[in-house]
Amino acid sequence: MSRVVKLAVIPGDGIGPEVIAEAEKVLDAVTADSGVVFDKTRFSLGAGRFLDTGETLTDDDLAAIAANDAILLGAVGGKPGDPRLKDANIERGLLLKLRFTLDHYVNLRPSKFFVGAPGPLSDPGEIDFVVVREGTEGPYVGNGGAIRKGTPQEVANETSVNTAFGVERVVRYAFDLAERRRKKVTLVHKTNVLVHAGAIWQRIVNEVAAEHPDVVVDYLHVDAATIFLVTDPSRFDVIVTDNLFGDILTDLAGAVTGGIGLAASGNINPDGAFPSMFEPVHGSAPDIAGQQKADPTAAILSIALLLDHLGLTEESARVSAAVEADIAARTAARTTAEIGSAITARL
Amino acid sequence: MSRVVKLAVIPGDGIGPEVIAEAEKVLDAVTADSGVVFDKTRFSLGAGRFLDTGETLTDDDLAAIAANDAILLGAVGGKPGDPRLKDANIERGLLLKLRFTLDHYVNLRPSKFFVGAPGPLSDPGEIDFVVVREGTEGPYVGNGGAIRKGTPQEVANETSVNTAFGVERVVRYAFDLAERRRKKVTLVHKTNVLVHAGAIWQRIVNEVAAEHPDVVVDYLHVDAATIFLVTDPSRFDVIVTDNLFGDILTDLAGAVTGGIGLAASGNINPDGAFPSMFEPVHGSAPDIAGQQKADPTAAILSIALLLDHLGLTEESARVSAAVEADIAARTAARTTAEIGSAITARL
Ligand SMILES: CC(C)[C@H](C(=O)O)[C@@H](O)C(=O)O
Ligand SMILES: CC(C)[C@H](C(=O)O)[C@@H](O)C(=O)O
Repeated sequence: MSRVVKLAVIPGDGIGPEVIAEAEKVLDAVTADSGVVFDKTRFSLGAGRFLDTGETLTDDDLAAIAANDAILLGAVGGKPGDPRLKDANIERGLLLKLRFTLDHYVNLRPSKFFVGAPGPLSDPGEIDFVVVREGTEGPYVGNGGAIRKGTPQEVANETSVNTAFGVERVVRYAFDLAERRRKKVTLVHKTNVLVHAGAIWQRIVNEVAAEHPDVVVDYLHVDAATIFLVTDPSRFDVIVTDNLFGDILTDLAGAVTGGIGLAASGNINPDGAFPSMFEPVHGSAPDIAGQQKADPTAAILSIALLLDHLGLTEESARVSAAVEADIAARTAARTTAEIGSAITARL
Repeated sequence: MSRVVKLAVIPGDGIGPEVIAEAEKVLDAVTADSGVVFDKTRFSLGAGRFLDTGETLTDDDLAAIAANDAILLGAVGGKPGDPRLKDANIERGLLLKLRFTLDHYVNLRPSKFFVGAPGPLSDPGEIDFVVVREGTEGPYVGNGGAIRKGTPQEVANETSVNTAFGVERVVRYAFDLAERRRKKVTLVHKTNVLVHAGAIWQRIVNEVAAEHPDVVVDYLHVDAATIFLVTDPSRFDVIVTDNLFGDILTDLAGAVTGGIGLAASGNINPDGAFPSMFEPVHGSAPDIAGQQKADPTAAILSIALLLDHLGLTEESARVSAAVEADIAARTAARTTAEIGSAITARL
């Protein structure tokens, strides 16, 4: 009897559908004989749906998505500056709403430099770290407002909210992960300026560190962390940080490891109360949509994260190995589908 | 009759005094025949002073510093983790207090790649941009707090405050600067997530842009901006951004242009109501203090910014040219004083 995994698939906008098609190709191939069957439901969400219907994410959508075991998302967002999207905020209303409602408190973003990958650094060295980005609080809570809007007297505030509950659970996740890796956790924050938010992060890291005497703990201000990401990225094993700093560091990390065309992510609810969601770090890139120009590797590596999350560690490793081999062999430019097929062939 | 410029000198901690000694060497040499005399007052401030006296920055200190025409600062801050500094926050209590009290609303941070400079990028290209970082509001205002501190129920908040008054004056500065450069302004923010703070920045940039039809205006999310800083830094001319994003971008920019040993900054009050302050972007680096290992170039380039601010544009250009020539000729390792003397000799 086979195990059935209910998978919500949200291809989204722009290059989303193209890269998701390749990710599904890989998923189907690698699980063909695994005894696991994916029962997929497709959701049409994103800027396209908003333009058609005026809806971003309804309660019915949310309930239907939440009824799945996991979610695969391509990318969402329309053309920058599209006047019809002026009052839509697809990022907040769809992507962040999913992350917050489904309590994705771990935003897991591995950074690994695969030999053969392009990259801006003259000497990348061995890059293999994971950013554990908090996903449900910090500056992302949407806790802000403005008075006298549009006038010369406007004041616009934005509040970062950090709770011991929220910080502790993600910090614990980071230490547990470090125990299974090279046993080093780096907290990134700006404790010398954001003293209140910084203090709660530092306190909880210290407390959890005391339970993990074998894990080396380091601290870096976010500005210094960006320097080390380009001058000495191999110093990192597990980085734990807040929602905003994690956003910034992982784009930069993606760039130094060959571009965000390769960067995968998991929005994880480790408690299993809600389905976790896997997506490439890149956006919908409407300018190259439909042209088979997008690299589906980030979406395919998101499949590896999904498989790992489902306990299919062997299948996950096969996907990673196939990607690694494909990158090592890259020469001529290929279409999105060609890359997906080449990786599938290597499984 | 010579013009007298009253200069407050704050060497500070760690490598601060060493790099300031070289900066003064250059200042003295380049202004020797300029008809300008610097009337210097030294202030002993920083972690050292705090450990001696328990004081960080008294009202008397502030008044005495404010009575000058300009300020030259080395670096402040003690050894990380020094238990005697546990309750001191030299950064907030001294550096940020100076910037806020003296209304340094423009934190000016040029990034230029000098041929011969070391750098992590395999192909840096022509890098020559200026970050205009807001210096008196945003997430740096210290507007936060915590409840149930130290307990599992702690909530710690941190509020970013952005005013039309504060944003407009720094945006105007950025556009005026762009008019004298390559006429391009890039706003960096995270408008899709920090919607209130983002909206006031975007609105004011749009308004000021309308008065500068010849300036090309661009927008980047902060995460995307870090990518371009390592993959295509020559696309930037003037970047305008808030206090926190500016902090992050300028450390990264320093790294890609040869290290923060070369990155200078000016904390400017363009209205002239208060003295402006010039300092290297780097910190006090207590681990290498007193060993003549620090590169004084950032401090020396801060002299170029100081001279420019004082209207001594020819002298400023001579300092920059001397630094550029020195970097192009760099080979063996040199002491702090050797670098300072070599640059002085090239003036
Ligand atoms: C689209 C945006 C809201 C999102 C974020 O800031 O989290 C993206 O940049 C990411 O990193 O997944
Ligand atoms: C020391 C610190 C408060 C300061 C800042 O964050 O502004 C520093 O990083 C800088 O960039 O000058």
